[in-house]
Amino acid sequence: MTVATIARLAGVSAPTVSRVLNGQAGVSLGTRRRVEAVLQEYGYRRPEAAQMPVLELVFHALESLWALEIIRGVEQVAREHGLAVVLTEMQGRLTPGRAWTEQVLSRRPAGVIAVFSELTVAQQSQLATRSIPLVVLDPTGEPLHQTPSVGATNWSGGLAATRHLLELGHRRIAMISGPTNWPCCRARLDGYRAAMDAAGVPVDPELVRISTLYVEGGLHDGAALLSLPDPPTAIFTANDLQALGVYEAARRAGLRIPDDLSVVGFDDLAFTQWSGPPMTTVRQPLVQMGATAASMIVTLANGGTLENHRVELATTLIVRESTAPPRSH
Amino acid sequence: MTVATIARLAGVSAPTVSRVLNGQAGVSLGTRRRVEAVLQEYGYRRPEAAQMPVLELVFHALESLWALEIIRGVEQVAREHGLAVVLTEMQGRLTPGRAWTEQVLSRRPAGVIAVFSELTVAQQSQLATRSIPLVVLDPTGEPLHQTPSVGATNWSGGLAATRHLLELGHRRIAMISGPTNWPCCRARLDGYRAAMDAAGVPVDPELVRISTLYVEGGLHDGAALLSLPDPPTAIFTANDLQALGVYEAARRAGLRIPDDLSVVGFDDLAFTQWSGPPMTTVRQPLVQMGATAASMIVTLANGGTLENHRVELATTLIVRESTAPPRSH
Repeated sequence: MTVATIARLAGVSAPTVSRVLNGQAGVSLGTRRRVEAVLQEYGYRRPEAAQMPVLELVFHALESLWALEIIRGVEQVAREHGLAVVLTEMQGRLTPGRAWTEQVLSRRPAGVIAVFSELTVAQQSQLATRSIPLVVLDPTGEPLHQTPSVGATNWSGGLAATRHLLELGHRRIAMISGPTNWPCCRARLDGYRAAMDAAGVPVDPELVRISTLYVEGGLHDGAALLSLPDPPTAIFTANDLQALGVYEAARRAGLRIPDDLSVVGFDDLAFTQWSGPPMTTVRQPLVQMGATAASMIVTLANGGTLENHRVELATTLIVRESTAPPRSH
Repeated sequence: MTVATIARLAGVSAPTVSRVLNGQAGVSLGTRRRVEAVLQEYGYRRPEAAQMPVLELVFHALESLWALEIIRGVEQVAREHGLAVVLTEMQGRLTPGRAWTEQVLSRRPAGVIAVFSELTVAQQSQLATRSIPLVVLDPTGEPLHQTPSVGATNWSGGLAATRHLLELGHRRIAMISGPTNWPCCRARLDGYRAAMDAAGVPVDPELVRISTLYVEGGLHDGAALLSLPDPPTAIFTANDLQALGVYEAARRAGLRIPDDLSVVGFDDLAFTQWSGPPMTTVRQPLVQMGATAASMIVTLANGGTLENHRVELATTLIVRESTAPPRSH
């Protein structure tokens, strides 16, 4: 069933059939209907060649604005380069299963972006064999791997947040970290320790907690910290959701932020500027991180080479109203 | 280049080649590498038949948690039915352009879900001709159209929110609505009016404002309402983002929520329970709305018929701490 055959059957020219197939203007409604009727009658299927290549975007979980901002960045660059974005959520798992691999290989994507996930060695080799580039955003595995990756300057962000609290006069500064086997979380914690060391303030091990990156984690560990005999006057958290959990822990303990407790988050998700009080936090440029990962895929898919295998975009401390000098200061 | 040829070249059986191609287990690392090497050397491309069908998900904009919750619902059902989700953002436009149509038709999707968007008659007919089902989520166009659609019980939600404020003793209740040519916004406003009428409280036209569905809209119109000679004691907004804008307008006017002003939002996005104060709002089951739209696509793609062309899922009033009796009460 060719375009020429359809044109003959519909009594129109081949270019007209192409225009209808491509959804272009310049065809009268009557003609369009006639062509569509023939297409339908003969069950026309467009040849494969016209297919747009896809970019695979894999998330461990779609749970927060964090994910949405990355999606927006990837979408922007993909659209500019004529790539469709196929989105997969792994329901919290960090490594995709076999069914995923099979499906991805069958779509012959221009590339794969794995967010906060890691592929097995076998999966990586399957992609490499087929010349499908892979870029990891916020890798969860070995930080020294050879896969191209994008992240933010997490260590500097942790340092800036902690230095801000030190400059306000805080000394009992707690950190609620995420799982430290994830390099992004470990780097934030190391930045906190570095700032404390530089200021000559010993880190009390009781004030460092490893938690989950959710509101519930911040609430649980925030409550534990606030119930210590000598509680912290400030808490730095590994993400904004944890910081919201600390807000709630403070509310339940009858403490006001920032009068009784200073809080600094990490990410600068949109709601932080409207939280009560507006949150001091470390901004990650998530949209740009997604866009950068997609640009790396485009470069690799076109046979180019990357200037850097590891890109870290700058974090910025955003001071709002959840931080103030400690009461006793 | 067939599987049999590859098997011969690699010195393995054809099923072994298939297992490697499909990313299945049960192949030793050495064998896998040998097969991968042959695949690479001869530039093997997998035949089209193995491709997984896709479900197209089109958003006018990816700007809020609202979008993410819908994506999650669609993803869940798509995954269960072996469909890959292709995500498109139209950067705020309500009708996709010609390039989109062309690409979608070329992917021969199992179906299209358009969120807060409308397709032109020509686009709808192009999908229909190719038997590609279309489902609209929160349609923006004509409410009586024949396209299957999913929404929430917006009118009942508006009624419940306003009745809650009336029961607290409020009489000067303002509504900040979204664009009323969008049926979901119009229905919320009509619910507000119905509750006021039922309570015998006349609606002061000055207290009804049409705004954009963003924080900035709520801030702008909230500030205008609060500066009236006889300001409202309560404001009901068409979404949670607008309500956050009203929070900020109140803060700037030196008013406390709920002591000086009650606020009710709409959507129940995750951050509302952590806003300051936690927000009373009308919950839309957004994940279920996405899942329902995807289920409708699956039914239609399998040649089934829908029980209902229009599905409205129930809204629920969630009372938190942003509402209280008025001061003078």
